[in-house]
Amino acid sequence: MTESGSVAPVVGVIGGGQLARMLAEAAAPLGITIKVLAAANDEGASDIVVDVLSGAPDDRDAIRRLAAIVDVVTIDHENVDWQTLAELESEGVAVWPSVETLRLSDKAHQRRTFAEMGLPVPPFAVVSVGQGSADDRAGALDQSLTFLTEHGNSDGRIVAKASRGGYDGRGVWILDAAELPAFIDDYQGAPLVLEPLLDLELELAVLAARNPSGETRVWPVVETVQVDGMCDEVIMPAQVPEALAQQAIALGREVLERTGSVGVLAVELFVSGGELLINEIAPRVHNSGHVTIEANQTSQFEQHLRAVLDWPLGPTECVAPAAVMHNVVGDTSDPRANQAAGLAIFPGAHVHLYGKTPRPARKLGHVTVMGEDVETCRTTAEAVAAALTAQAKGSR
Amino acid sequence: MTESGSVAPVVGVIGGGQLARMLAEAAAPLGITIKVLAAANDEGASDIVVDVLSGAPDDRDAIRRLAAIVDVVTIDHENVDWQTLAELESEGVAVWPSVETLRLSDKAHQRRTFAEMGLPVPPFAVVSVGQGSADDRAGALDQSLTFLTEHGNSDGRIVAKASRGGYDGRGVWILDAAELPAFIDDYQGAPLVLEPLLDLELELAVLAARNPSGETRVWPVVETVQVDGMCDEVIMPAQVPEALAQQAIALGREVLERTGSVGVLAVELFVSGGELLINEIAPRVHNSGHVTIEANQTSQFEQHLRAVLDWPLGPTECVAPAAVMHNVVGDTSDPRANQAAGLAIFPGAHVHLYGKTPRPARKLGHVTVMGEDVETCRTTAEAVAAALTAQAKGSR
Repeated sequence: MTESGSVAPVVGVIGGGQLARMLAEAAAPLGITIKVLAAANDEGASDIVVDVLSGAPDDRDAIRRLAAIVDVVTIDHENVDWQTLAELESEGVAVWPSVETLRLSDKAHQRRTFAEMGLPVPPFAVVSVGQGSADDRAGALDQSLTFLTEHGNSDGRIVAKASRGGYDGRGVWILDAAELPAFIDDYQGAPLVLEPLLDLELELAVLAARNPSGETRVWPVVETVQVDGMCDEVIMPAQVPEALAQQAIALGREVLERTGSVGVLAVELFVSGGELLINEIAPRVHNSGHVTIEANQTSQFEQHLRAVLDWPLGPTECVAPAAVMHNVVGDTSDPRANQAAGLAIFPGAHVHLYGKTPRPARKLGHVTVMGEDVETCRTTAEAVAAALTAQAKGSR
Repeated sequence: MTESGSVAPVVGVIGGGQLARMLAEAAAPLGITIKVLAAANDEGASDIVVDVLSGAPDDRDAIRRLAAIVDVVTIDHENVDWQTLAELESEGVAVWPSVETLRLSDKAHQRRTFAEMGLPVPPFAVVSVGQGSADDRAGALDQSLTFLTEHGNSDGRIVAKASRGGYDGRGVWILDAAELPAFIDDYQGAPLVLEPLLDLELELAVLAARNPSGETRVWPVVETVQVDGMCDEVIMPAQVPEALAQQAIALGREVLERTGSVGVLAVELFVSGGELLINEIAPRVHNSGHVTIEANQTSQFEQHLRAVLDWPLGPTECVAPAAVMHNVVGDTSDPRANQAAGLAIFPGAHVHLYGKTPRPARKLGHVTVMGEDVETCRTTAEAVAAALTAQAKGSR
């Protein structure tokens, strides 16, 4: 029992974006109290969560204030103060995902760890540039050019990713030999992970969950469609041969078990040359799992809460032959004024809006459509999402 | 746009119980803002709704404060100040259900109206006792004894119901000729509706919705099982011949259309001698519709919000062959400490808790189980509900 005296379990979420919001939406029916630590510029959770503490995700005191009034600490995003969480862990506070798992969201550490484990990852190199000296930069450029010579694609290009802080296509660059010197010269930030610009057949994602008691559940594999580096669409089931789907699920489960992750874990996979490679993981609920809210017996949000509270996990089977999620991506028109227009396109659409101020390329919501076949669902979900951001005639 | 300047539509709910709570749960994904007017002793909504105004449902000023900051006014229960709502309507405020529809929740007015419309209702008499004189009481007793002579069952008993203010079995009495004099002598309150103690095969409920533009949707008919006058279980689909199911749906739709009700309308039906009779209606979301949250393409809570906002309504088809809702009824153990025990019984159960302090015979939540057959769902849902209120070994 927490100091509030409430008998209801209390989960604290660091970060107040749409993932915290959807965790709160899943918590309410279950009689779980959610308390959110929201930064000044966070939008999403505060509209619908009664207990919001103000504080940045790297504010040690704020994290401690949250931890003091909850049973479990979890996250909306990984860019939090890991050091404070490690202190809390050592004091016996339940922090899920664990700091060890959270550290895997550093792409450099993740690639090295998975490579050491023998898990399938693309060829990679880690290059430290940081705020280094001219010598450091010269060394980093040499290393990058060597990687490009060995792994550049037919156009002589490679991919560079910031190992921390990137999301939705930010922190990812495609570079050739001519561009590398200026890029390395200007770059400041976390070490870079270099990888080949792979020729991808498609991308998959496996969502999996584990509780501290060791129970695990894995959802059916989904296909993710990226536009400009941001997830645009999720297709369930993935349109791949059954053998590949099973291989993906087995790989997702292996990552879950080898990392010992608790809560929901998203494993994003490349399919290249018919082979699976781990693109990256996210130790939390994930855009690729929003479709589970309606399309699976247990949603990723409910499952994450059940996992971090060490409750029995729920079944993950699909409840419809096909389901597609389409993101609602910001423009100038606010989808919160356009729901009727969206539902008029397809009254069976499941509309999810995040309460965020519209900005170009900002995720403002998503739409899930279920049906008999994937293609109809794709067309419908895209049309509903478009109507939600179209400038309405009667716009307020 | 409301005075808050928010672009999101704002729905105001008078009353802060579990129906307001579940309306808020449905509102969050849709980007609808909910504001609740909660009385001092209301529990359910305040835990999860950010904007709660304090005020009784018969407090004119409080209702006006709510109406001033919302786009639409709706209700958690019917025991509100209809006069104030009528004033608001005349001033052009959107109030759904309308006051005309709300007045039908007076059981005397409802029976008379339906009888005049030629809709099937049980034989009835309305008896006014109130705070009347000895003469009034003598007249009421005479009238009651006459009704008993004509409509008493084989044991010489009839049913008396308070026309307003009753719920969950409260305000309902079963009486014989020997008991009537003392009962009438003691009774104070709204007029009584007398009806036969019918020999019921079973009870059904039809949920229907209508928006101000006139679009309607009706859910598949469900069977309701009452214990001590309180809904205990809801079974979807109702285990009745298809012809009777279709007749029930047609009757539900007829009530919706004849009353011109807007929002969700619950029509509770008796099946007696193979015939359908209207027991009573509730012009709002209803316990018999909680199963729709998971078991139908659109839940009654989302539909009600869409209806009162005059948005397109959603499809109502079942998404599983069978679904059963079992109420979680209060005892001393708080189900908010027992979720893991409930989910351990059946991890696929959908647990809904209302954030209410446990008291004997108080509805604290409900459980929905879906599956292939009704009997398995019934057994499972009952077991999960029982585990949620069992005194846990590790109770906190």
